[in-house]
Amino acid sequence: MKLKTLAARLGCVLRGDGDVEIDAIRSLEDAGPGHLTFLANPKYQAQLASTRASAVLLATDHAELVLPTLRADNPYVAFAEALTLLHEPRPLPAGVHPRAVIAGSARIGDGASIGANVVIGDDVVIGPRAVLHPNVTIYPGVHIGSDCVAHAGVVVREDVRLGDRVMLHPGVVIGADGFGFAPGPRGAVKIPQIGTVIIEDDVEIGANATVDRATLGATIVRTQAKLDNLVMVAHNCEIGAGTMLAAQVGVAGSTKVGRGVQMGGQAGVAGHITIGDGVQVVAQSGIPSSVEAGKIVGGYPAVDVSIWRRTSAALLRLPGLLRRVRRLERRIDGALGSPDGE
Amino acid sequence: MKLKTLAARLGCVLRGDGDVEIDAIRSLEDAGPGHLTFLANPKYQAQLASTRASAVLLATDHAELVLPTLRADNPYVAFAEALTLLHEPRPLPAGVHPRAVIAGSARIGDGASIGANVVIGDDVVIGPRAVLHPNVTIYPGVHIGSDCVAHAGVVVREDVRLGDRVMLHPGVVIGADGFGFAPGPRGAVKIPQIGTVIIEDDVEIGANATVDRATLGATIVRTQAKLDNLVMVAHNCEIGAGTMLAAQVGVAGSTKVGRGVQMGGQAGVAGHITIGDGVQVVAQSGIPSSVEAGKIVGGYPAVDVSIWRRTSAALLRLPGLLRRVRRLERRIDGALGSPDGE
Amino acid sequence: MKLKTLAARLGCVLRGDGDVEIDAIRSLEDAGPGHLTFLANPKYQAQLASTRASAVLLATDHAELVLPTLRADNPYVAFAEALTLLHEPRPLPAGVHPRAVIAGSARIGDGASIGANVVIGDDVVIGPRAVLHPNVTIYPGVHIGSDCVAHAGVVVREDVRLGDRVMLHPGVVIGADGFGFAPGPRGAVKIPQIGTVIIEDDVEIGANATVDRATLGATIVRTQAKLDNLVMVAHNCEIGAGTMLAAQVGVAGSTKVGRGVQMGGQAGVAGHITIGDGVQVVAQSGIPSSVEAGKIVGGYPAVDVSIWRRTSAALLRLPGLLRRVRRLERRIDGALGSPDGE
Repeated sequence: MKLKTLAARLGCVLRGDGDVEIDAIRSLEDAGPGHLTFLANPKYQAQLASTRASAVLLATDHAELVLPTLRADNPYVAFAEALTLLHEPRPLPAGVHPRAVIAGSARIGDGASIGANVVIGDDVVIGPRAVLHPNVTIYPGVHIGSDCVAHAGVVVREDVRLGDRVMLHPGVVIGADGFGFAPGPRGAVKIPQIGTVIIEDDVEIGANATVDRATLGATIVRTQAKLDNLVMVAHNCEIGAGTMLAAQVGVAGSTKVGRGVQMGGQAGVAGHITIGDGVQVVAQSGIPSSVEAGKIVGGYPAVDVSIWRRTSAALLRLPGLLRRVRRLERRIDGALGSPDGE
Repeated sequence: MKLKTLAARLGCVLRGDGDVEIDAIRSLEDAGPGHLTFLANPKYQAQLASTRASAVLLATDHAELVLPTLRADNPYVAFAEALTLLHEPRPLPAGVHPRAVIAGSARIGDGASIGANVVIGDDVVIGPRAVLHPNVTIYPGVHIGSDCVAHAGVVVREDVRLGDRVMLHPGVVIGADGFGFAPGPRGAVKIPQIGTVIIEDDVEIGANATVDRATLGATIVRTQAKLDNLVMVAHNCEIGAGTMLAAQVGVAGSTKVGRGVQMGGQAGVAGHITIGDGVQVVAQSGIPSSVEAGKIVGGYPAVDVSIWRRTSAALLRLPGLLRRVRRLERRIDGALGSPDGE
Repeated sequence: MKLKTLAARLGCVLRGDGDVEIDAIRSLEDAGPGHLTFLANPKYQAQLASTRASAVLLATDHAELVLPTLRADNPYVAFAEALTLLHEPRPLPAGVHPRAVIAGSARIGDGASIGANVVIGDDVVIGPRAVLHPNVTIYPGVHIGSDCVAHAGVVVREDVRLGDRVMLHPGVVIGADGFGFAPGPRGAVKIPQIGTVIIEDDVEIGANATVDRATLGATIVRTQAKLDNLVMVAHNCEIGAGTMLAAQVGVAGSTKVGRGVQMGGQAGVAGHITIGDGVQVVAQSGIPSSVEAGKIVGGYPAVDVSIWRRTSAALLRLPGLLRRVRRLERRIDGALGSPDGE
């Protein structure tokens, strides 16, 4: 594709020779002739000088380069779109693989692709153009929307609802029993988890992550939420629209996470609390109680991030502080005598 | 079912009209006509006033309501039992699915249900009424007790023993090799993990959790232990009877966890130590050394929970304390002169 | 096998009766007649006195025992080798199971073992003697080297490269999409992850661990690296040769981990940083920024381990320190009067 064609397709401003041919996108370091590269993170600015790419995608207001450039107000989004344009994914076999096992009462949408050894239970509805890779298991009563993708090894338990364009990476488990037991006189009594899970449109869930079904009602993951690998969402939680949970985050039961929340990897959230809209959570934080909208929190237990940074820095001075106070006490004892009774 | 019938079946005291028909259980918020709701956590007391349920299950000593009530000394256990009574799970197909792959030397108990694409190796014994959902893999030599449930995608490696009524949620892996390597002159030498895993009766293990096989001997999960999703139990551990490990907990190798221990989510336990009976561990704690029975610990590294709470609170005052000590030093220097040599 | 034969095979020095028959290896505690036991960890020295084993494997310079002994400079490595000699693994069925689903364009190496319900996509190359257990899914374009083992439920996404002797435990996912989204005006835009994963020779990856594919280029796990269960390696990372990541470790995107690094369980590493060769990381540490080669770090945020130990100990004295400073302030106020303006 000529660079000028790419510019037109992406809605980018072109500077320099638009007739260079572009056949792939590579990083600044790896790019060579025929490649478009990009600069979205200023951290990599220094690599611009030595790139062997044929053209560069970068911010509208970036200084001129010798190389031809595509300019975008949001170069990161333009980069994502360029990847989609230039990268042809492997075609999937259409239709139902003869080695899929599909209940007679299940309905499969037009253009859906069902891989080998997929097992689909009674009364399941699979939307148009959905893709189920091999070895996926869909329990009875599940509804899956249009254009969803379930990668190999995914398990969706009974009666779960997935919206449109949901993407489940390999090994994801949706709708396993919540962890609910009532302490009884002869040990823990299992509380049947008769609720379900609702995954709204455009949600993406990373490899081997788990979202448990509710005890009653539904665990809900709202539209455009993105969960990374090995995330755990417990029963009866609600994860807000557009919220992003990085890898290995855990959210305990019945907690409500607001819209546009961002949590760093391995953060943990207690049960039965509310995380307000737009909250940001430092990686590995442990959140014991509700957090107001818009706050940025960090630490274990988590506090306002500026307080956490200040106390973390102060902590390094604590051993010295202990010595200083001991010295002060000695000096004062020397001047005033030891205090009464000591 | 009439409320009075339910009362009799649950052994609850009935107050009010026992002739109302109950067909399902819902939360205080979601319940409507024909629904039984419940109050087990006092936190939700305020929602009682506005519930639209036909009846309420609550504690024996709770104040009178206008609605008919069922009274139980342990309303949470009664709730669990009511769910079991009122919630008919989807019937499972009995027998062996024609698309299961079962070794000739395997023995399948009466009334067992073996799903599509299940693979069962040589010399496996599956107990009566056990349920293996689709795409489960049972390696050779495994023994599975009666009434066990293995959800889709479960893998049980060779020679592992499961007791009766064990429930494995989707993606659980039992008996993978422990992480054992001997540092040698040309890199790490793998130590063959020739031990096994023993899972006793009534254990439940959450989605995508892993319990590794022992190097020699057995990793053991004792009766009625409950492990939540994404928990990791390393080789040669023993997890005590009735112990509950919340999601994403990790227990390093050769550690012995006692009976009735409770660990919050993401807690981590070092290897080769002992956690006494009845210990409680705050979520995300990191336990570096053995803990005596009955202790409650928190923090990283974990200490007695009251000390952890006190130091966590004190930490927030540390930046101010640094300023106060600086001021004291200045005042004393002003009064006594600077100390020698400074 | 006679003890003297074992000694010769292992290259160990024999002390005592070499004619005793050894048929298995057991721990000090569990060993009986006919068993070889071993002492590699001095912590278990006390159990030597009461072992019922027929012979003991231990360090060259260990004191004499009544029992016959095998002596090795590195008894842990000798133990690993003895296990390999004495423990006959269950034979695997050779060849391709009739219920495997293999694309016509795939090539399967001589002596490979392909289990039931394995699905292998177009253009896949499986090396000689590789073992794919049941229910494994290999996407199109994957290359797998000789003598690799993929346990049940493993998923390898398209175009991933595995070297020789790679071992993937059950549920491992290699090559899932990295967690990459560009914030756009109408929500997050998915960045297609068109890169791949390269796993070099002799790598072992634990159950349900995940290694994501790169956005561009490749996520790389270098030769002899060992990853434990539930580890997460994000897109564009490089994990150095011989590096060991314990269970539930997470490494965020584009981070480079050096050679011979050791991380304790549940440690977390930020993205876009460098961990130098030979770094050691205490379990559960959170590493926010690059670490120089050879350092030992701990804490959250992680610092030099000696500083972390000192501050952790000092922290326990903080509540008392607050009281001491209050007392000092009172004494000085008493002697000098309250400071101005307070």
